[in-house]
Amino acid sequence: MSNLKKVGILGGGQLGRMLLQEAANYPVDTWVLENDPECPAAHLCDHFVLGDIRDHDTVLQFGRQVQVLTIEIENVNVEALEQLESEGITVIPRPAALRTIQNKILQKEFYLSKGIPTSPFHILQSKAELNRHIGFLPAVQKLGTGGYDGRGVQLLHKEEDLHKGFDGPSVLEKMVELQKEIAISVAINEKGETAVYPAVEMIFDPYLNLLDYQLCPADIPEKTGWKAEAMALAVARNLGSPGIFAVELFIDRSGDVWVNETAPRVHNSGHHTIEAHYSSQFDMLWRILLQYPLGNTKALQPSIMLNILGAEGHSGPARYEGLDDVLRMDHAFVHLYGKKETKPGRKMGHVTILGKDKSELLFQANKVKRTLKVHGS
Amino acid sequence: MSNLKKVGILGGGQLGRMLLQEAANYPVDTWVLENDPECPAAHLCDHFVLGDIRDHDTVLQFGRQVQVLTIEIENVNVEALEQLESEGITVIPRPAALRTIQNKILQKEFYLSKGIPTSPFHILQSKAELNRHIGFLPAVQKLGTGGYDGRGVQLLHKEEDLHKGFDGPSVLEKMVELQKEIAISVAINEKGETAVYPAVEMIFDPYLNLLDYQLCPADIPEKTGWKAEAMALAVARNLGSPGIFAVELFIDRSGDVWVNETAPRVHNSGHHTIEAHYSSQFDMLWRILLQYPLGNTKALQPSIMLNILGAEGHSGPARYEGLDDVLRMDHAFVHLYGKKETKPGRKMGHVTILGKDKSELLFQANKVKRTLKVHGS
Repeated sequence: MSNLKKVGILGGGQLGRMLLQEAANYPVDTWVLENDPECPAAHLCDHFVLGDIRDHDTVLQFGRQVQVLTIEIENVNVEALEQLESEGITVIPRPAALRTIQNKILQKEFYLSKGIPTSPFHILQSKAELNRHIGFLPAVQKLGTGGYDGRGVQLLHKEEDLHKGFDGPSVLEKMVELQKEIAISVAINEKGETAVYPAVEMIFDPYLNLLDYQLCPADIPEKTGWKAEAMALAVARNLGSPGIFAVELFIDRSGDVWVNETAPRVHNSGHHTIEAHYSSQFDMLWRILLQYPLGNTKALQPSIMLNILGAEGHSGPARYEGLDDVLRMDHAFVHLYGKKETKPGRKMGHVTILGKDKSELLFQANKVKRTLKVHGS
Repeated sequence: MSNLKKVGILGGGQLGRMLLQEAANYPVDTWVLENDPECPAAHLCDHFVLGDIRDHDTVLQFGRQVQVLTIEIENVNVEALEQLESEGITVIPRPAALRTIQNKILQKEFYLSKGIPTSPFHILQSKAELNRHIGFLPAVQKLGTGGYDGRGVQLLHKEEDLHKGFDGPSVLEKMVELQKEIAISVAINEKGETAVYPAVEMIFDPYLNLLDYQLCPADIPEKTGWKAEAMALAVARNLGSPGIFAVELFIDRSGDVWVNETAPRVHNSGHHTIEAHYSSQFDMLWRILLQYPLGNTKALQPSIMLNILGAEGHSGPARYEGLDDVLRMDHAFVHLYGKKETKPGRKMGHVTILGKDKSELLFQANKVKRTLKVHGS
């Protein structure tokens, strides 16, 4: 009989897919739970189970078949994970950490209680309460639960925007006068050992709130980098859980650093690590799940990464325009996620470019962005 | 309905596994034929079909389900591939090229007929004929068909060795006074465009004839490199087939270069390209199969690669001794192939190390070799 460790992943999107590409380097028996039989991860695992990751009994039943359980998306049934943990299944990240992060109100209170700098905020229960905080604008309102990939987030610049606000438990965060946005991923194993990836600098699309470009290393002063790294480590350590944590931080106009949000998993901001770093974020998570030593987070070369999104006005079976031209680029690595259907703004893939010169990286990334389009056929 | 191209792979070993890891970056529907339901590639493809790649009807039936067909091992049913080609299925490499390479007698005659330098040889039909060639020793006798991974190859140093000879159609090759052995992989697409990987230098285990270390780039004079590259290109072009061709060459004591053998597929000598080169041999083959532009064969860094073989005297469920120590090495990339059972000399994985200094690479490779052992539990 096989002596391979059984590891389950809740969710079968592109993060699961890239996790499984990397799993093939280790002795492991992989299980995936997802309710779409044609999801990106469905055909790259040893055992695919069709089911809803938000359903208590489904997650419980799935989790009881494995020894270690992880996630590739946050909106999973945490109660079931707590039950599984009490039954002796190793859950990474810990359900308690996941519970803190899943709810943006609890997440914000966590930073405050641990003395981790984060922008000022108010907790609201309903839309009506927004009127009490007009003097607090400009602000960002985030729903406590249910937000993902830009959903559940509303920018409120001035009083006239308040009608756009959400009516439900939410956090209203003071808008930081942004100089830069960066992200730092921290890996922690069961022993509490840590490994930190270099900061990446991010530029978001103001409309879709999806990552546009991401440069590594971030172009920031050394001392800002140290501060950000210390804060990312503080977030990960205080969550009290093994795993990989992608900490998003703001650098404001005066150079102060604030934690924005944390993802308790492999993350879009770490895709460049596949080719640009010795141990990718996916490799790193397997090391943690299988209790191997942590990997080397150093970069082989600086890099830039951009998401390939479904073009506006296009839906249906995906067709990649300009793919040949991008595949001809000498230092570009193309990842398409095998999603059969495109829709506007859907993450269909990403491209990483390696190179030593920042302006050259930006030039090449712009070229990819102008060239590669996902249309519906 | 899906508009993904259907690509079939004959064989489901580690080469198939690594091909499938890379396939996940492209829009493609993958099919694998192999007679072991727990083979390394079984759970990384969209469609796994259980069956014998040497059986005519099985290959025919499998091939009719796909649009493009390739191999990860040579001993497949070529007659079925010829039939499939005549039915309009794209077969890469072409069955005619495969037929030439499959038989070591035909392969040797091919080099001769195309004027590609290869060591002198005689064709034998039986063991008795060996006695006619005593003056030709030392030589290597290779069975026309049936050899793989060191089987079907016999070194014949002197007359007393002749009793070890094979009794069957074979080629008796003059033993080259070896200075170095190198390998060069050449990629050719349907348009005849080519891309050449840098030469790698190989050292073989004299007993198992399995690759021991492999250094890239090969430490050879520039002019020798040019000659070898021209010869590798000549081999690939004269085979008249798209695909990836791993050409093994000898450099003799006087610096002359001779073609030894060619594999019409991804090859053990190209494993380092996964991390050390922009486009890996696996990525490159997908580009050819899917009619995308060829990739960049340049190295990001020099590298060394070694196979992880099942330890002598050990059989049964695989257990990896010293794996933690190797995973702690800063510039090492570990690939284990997910084979549940080990046996002496079985290829269980490989490790690639990146680094700029040759002596440091050799030191690190030796460390891996001394440290990582595959035992049976």
